[in-house]
Amino acid sequence: MTKLFTMKAKSSLPLFIFVLSLMAVDAQVVETINLPPAQKTGGMPLMEAFQLRKSQRSFSSKELSNQQISNLLWAAYGINRPNEFRTVPAAKNWFEYDIYLLKSDGWFLYDVRKHALLKMGNEDLRIYGGTQDFVKAAPVILVYVADFGRMNDTTDELRKFFSAVDLGYISQNVYLWSASEGLATIILGQVDKPKVHEVLKLKPDQQVILSQPVGYPGQ
Amino acid sequence: MTKLFTMKAKSSLPLFIFVLSLMAVDAQVVETINLPPAQKTGGMPLMEAFQLRKSQRSFSSKELSNQQISNLLWAAYGINRPNEFRTVPAAKNWFEYDIYLLKSDGWFLYDVRKHALLKMGNEDLRIYGGTQDFVKAAPVILVYVADFGRMNDTTDELRKFFSAVDLGYISQNVYLWSASEGLATIILGQVDKPKVHEVLKLKPDQQVILSQPVGYPGQ
Repeated sequence: MTKLFTMKAKSSLPLFIFVLSLMAVDAQVVETINLPPAQKTGGMPLMEAFQLRKSQRSFSSKELSNQQISNLLWAAYGINRPNEFRTVPAAKNWFEYDIYLLKSDGWFLYDVRKHALLKMGNEDLRIYGGTQDFVKAAPVILVYVADFGRMNDTTDELRKFFSAVDLGYISQNVYLWSASEGLATIILGQVDKPKVHEVLKLKPDQQVILSQPVGYPGQ
Repeated sequence: MTKLFTMKAKSSLPLFIFVLSLMAVDAQVVETINLPPAQKTGGMPLMEAFQLRKSQRSFSSKELSNQQISNLLWAAYGINRPNEFRTVPAAKNWFEYDIYLLKSDGWFLYDVRKHALLKMGNEDLRIYGGTQDFVKAAPVILVYVADFGRMNDTTDELRKFFSAVDLGYISQNVYLWSASEGLATIILGQVDKPKVHEVLKLKPDQQVILSQPVGYPGQ
């Protein structure tokens, strides 16, 4: 009996821990919101989008539609080919970014594979999207978070370098998509990163890099 | 007489050095090649360019036209508004990048303000554009060089970070423009940077960051 019990305990403990860890992850997702498929045709002719690309610091509070959010996220980091390759290059195929969205009705993580929004909380965290006053008026603030834990077999200096390059790729697509849609956007370095790390309940390996509000232009 | 001579020597020496230094700079420019104005309308609808964006490792040796090179460089780093603002964001308006072009007929620096190619030498330096064999087949290799000397009032860590982000912006425009034109491209980290620094006769503050060949797809 003693032996059997010991065997049972040995075999079920890893499973127990595994289930617990799954629960810990799932507990954070309040709701999964499937986005409509992104519209992968149309948009402004490319050269005109280059011509209109610019940074804007004034936002209207008018909400973006789910279709716009779908298109925006697919443009930023969506899958455009087999093998989960993306609209942007990814150094060493790490795909180290998680894109969080801060909105008036809560905060969300973009699930690239499901093309869905995972609602992580009901709080309006836009006040943490940037330290400048104009930021929080935007209906959507993207927060770019690099998971250094996915960037294996390299140095910390190269993690910093490649995650910075990869951020430029993502953010430029957001700029061009916004230009095409007549929306305003700006990349922001003035972010209280430790605070954002805390309110988004990030892991130690996750690094808040920059943020980017998107919305209709303000007055 | 002695005094006069001394005075003359004193007053003309700075001028002499100034003229010499101008000559040293001018001597590097073999020829200025004015590019045709970039075509700032047309191109593929933006969402289709996102859909087709990818990295390709095989290039035909077919040359790009001057109009294509004009459009490519304007898309990458051209001026699209007053105050010399660009098709890409630039951290703190440093505009720290110089884009060099390696071609079969020589090597060139993109003069953004004149929208011209400054020919710096007649040598075909494409062999230095990347350490992988497929690279040198491309008719144009862009070499992205950040001038840390322009990135004032900051730390070296932030110079590295912002120049990396800014490179992503530029390179993504090159990716999207190439997709729109049916051309192949890929961003490359495998570059012998000290050697490129030497053959392009760069200043100590100039940092070779990455390179990006562009051309028609190979077989």
